[in-house]
Amino acid sequence: MKAFNYLIPTQIIFGEGKISALHDQIAKYGKKVLLVYSGDVVKITGIYDQIMEIFKEEGVSFWEVGDVAPNPRVDSVNKGGALCKEHDIDWILGIGGGSAIDCSKAIAAAAKYEGDDAWDMVMDISLLKDALPIGNISTVAATGSEIDPISGINNDATNEKKGLVHPLLYPKFSIQDPLYTFTVPKFQTAVGTIDMMCHILENYLTMDITEAVAPTYMAEGLLKAIIEMGPVAYNDPKNYKARSNLMWAAGQAMCGLLEVGKVRTRTVHPIEHAVSGMYPSVVHGEGLAILMPRYMEYALSPETAHVLAQYGRNVWGVEGEDNMEVAKAAIEKTKEFFASFGVRTRLRDVGVPEESLPEMAKIVIKDVGGVSVKGLHEMFEEDVLKLYQMAW
Amino acid sequence: MKAFNYLIPTQIIFGEGKISALHDQIAKYGKKVLLVYSGDVVKITGIYDQIMEIFKEEGVSFWEVGDVAPNPRVDSVNKGGALCKEHDIDWILGIGGGSAIDCSKAIAAAAKYEGDDAWDMVMDISLLKDALPIGNISTVAATGSEIDPISGINNDATNEKKGLVHPLLYPKFSIQDPLYTFTVPKFQTAVGTIDMMCHILENYLTMDITEAVAPTYMAEGLLKAIIEMGPVAYNDPKNYKARSNLMWAAGQAMCGLLEVGKVRTRTVHPIEHAVSGMYPSVVHGEGLAILMPRYMEYALSPETAHVLAQYGRNVWGVEGEDNMEVAKAAIEKTKEFFASFGVRTRLRDVGVPEESLPEMAKIVIKDVGGVSVKGLHEMFEEDVLKLYQMAW
Repeated sequence: MKAFNYLIPTQIIFGEGKISALHDQIAKYGKKVLLVYSGDVVKITGIYDQIMEIFKEEGVSFWEVGDVAPNPRVDSVNKGGALCKEHDIDWILGIGGGSAIDCSKAIAAAAKYEGDDAWDMVMDISLLKDALPIGNISTVAATGSEIDPISGINNDATNEKKGLVHPLLYPKFSIQDPLYTFTVPKFQTAVGTIDMMCHILENYLTMDITEAVAPTYMAEGLLKAIIEMGPVAYNDPKNYKARSNLMWAAGQAMCGLLEVGKVRTRTVHPIEHAVSGMYPSVVHGEGLAILMPRYMEYALSPETAHVLAQYGRNVWGVEGEDNMEVAKAAIEKTKEFFASFGVRTRLRDVGVPEESLPEMAKIVIKDVGGVSVKGLHEMFEEDVLKLYQMAW
Repeated sequence: MKAFNYLIPTQIIFGEGKISALHDQIAKYGKKVLLVYSGDVVKITGIYDQIMEIFKEEGVSFWEVGDVAPNPRVDSVNKGGALCKEHDIDWILGIGGGSAIDCSKAIAAAAKYEGDDAWDMVMDISLLKDALPIGNISTVAATGSEIDPISGINNDATNEKKGLVHPLLYPKFSIQDPLYTFTVPKFQTAVGTIDMMCHILENYLTMDITEAVAPTYMAEGLLKAIIEMGPVAYNDPKNYKARSNLMWAAGQAMCGLLEVGKVRTRTVHPIEHAVSGMYPSVVHGEGLAILMPRYMEYALSPETAHVLAQYGRNVWGVEGEDNMEVAKAAIEKTKEFFASFGVRTRLRDVGVPEESLPEMAKIVIKDVGGVSVKGLHEMFEEDVLKLYQMAW
């Protein structure tokens, strides 16, 4: 196993009715709270009313940023930061999926930042020196933001998106009640499931698979669980067993636990980000569903076949001696699984014009540091372009 | 999945040469340090010299409790606590396996305890109100104490053993360099491997196996990794791949990660503790190797066969349709695996006289709350006695 550091200091409070744990958190962090959420979900699920009841009992004063966009904007961050400073807010509660929780983290830093525009801090992390405590109530099983120290922020003025990553941004607690995910629409359940799988696969599919045995086998276990539970939640949205397992899986898939001891790779995620970055109507998880199997096909060679074959045998139960054959079967299984959710399977189907593929390939290479996408198979700009063409 | 809370806030710093991370920890926690260890291991592995070099560079003043016994005594705790108070020590560094690290935690609490005898605090946890920061350098893959908030302390005067468990006792950091485990003797490697497996199995083998799918499949993955790597480390003590995977596995096996969403059970561990408690020459891991397969046999019934069969299929690759047959094969595999390490397989072989079995069964029932051992199969005092007789 390669050297690594691992830390997830977030208290996970998991189960039906666990919103009651807010009482303890108020006692711990204070009675002046900023709520950060994105409109609908907190109303549909009834979370908002439940919070109001607890806040009333505890005598909490609160303010709100309730209009966080799907890709949170630095404007919301500045607005939240100003509220915190003006009202001397004690801590921040993010409610929702990745966007609301990401935004709550950036606000926590903005609240302690002396400048006026938090974008300066996003661009220069050394300016982040303190942050308010952050907690969250998770309502979607997909992003892992509920337990990680990462916040992705967009700047409409400059058309940039950047990640703010800092140990001060670890949530202090995450309340995870699977019931809140019962109302997640079918399509979102599908793309959330695919996103989790692709996060695991991205770091699982490396040559370290034979060295980092313990994290690799645990990753295989979690992949199997997601493959089993995803379709159940998709077809039966109020299935507690499926929803609870997926909710737990989301955090474990993305918090770094299954990547320890391996070289950390970013492969299909940056390749997809260039697509949905240029065409925001493309949903990240659907883009991943299109690109992941093509990435596997592109990376498959006599040198890498044993990696994809292990995936086939241990995750999909594919039998056979020949690594190439087992690897190909594993890729087919992956394609079929994604297709079973009814997601589209070609870039042209999701509205990406063929002529934009070269530009997107350039963006990918820039995103990964200027040379190549490293992973199971090193990919230069022309490789990424070929991959896009295969997927188009 | 059942409701649960999960928190492991310890920074894990893993890999060859990672002792260098001590520089950062000194900067964070201070320059007056108490070292807690148990003689030999820090000398054999060269850790002590490495620490001295870093302490010298950093200008650290240090004191020592260097004679921690295998089952740490409250006398060592009081001694360490007094040193901390007298010299206004900033933080505590435990070095070694479970005993040294357990002792370092209790000393951290004793340092902030106003009374003279820390045993009062062990007996009444409400007296624990503060603790010094604790870090550790782990040298054995076995106990999980390096990342948990649990400290087991013995009192020779009253002949009692008790666990001190408190969130303030979470280590701030754990340095895990697999090289330090190269000198762990073969027998210790064997019993450490068995102990990890039994910790996982104890919580894996429950009726929740079909509900908590994600933690269950991850547990199966880790069991497979331990089964693969244990014999490699046993036969080739300087095998970095095996030692690193086992070192990582130890923490994950025991930190609660694989038990989330399940009813927490204590079965074979209390049944073994009564044995090694009465006969301290019995090594805990060897006792477990004797008792775990018998526990499985005792618990096997038409109602529980599917649980043991899943273990057989997913961990051992046993094939077959009939759950009872697959379960029996899984138990055989487990026995054979333990025996492959050359550990003894009967209570009589490790020096337990037959006439003490009834007394031990009473102790077990007392330990688990006075009624029965709950798990895959509820066991009353007469069941525990029968189990002991099967294992004698």
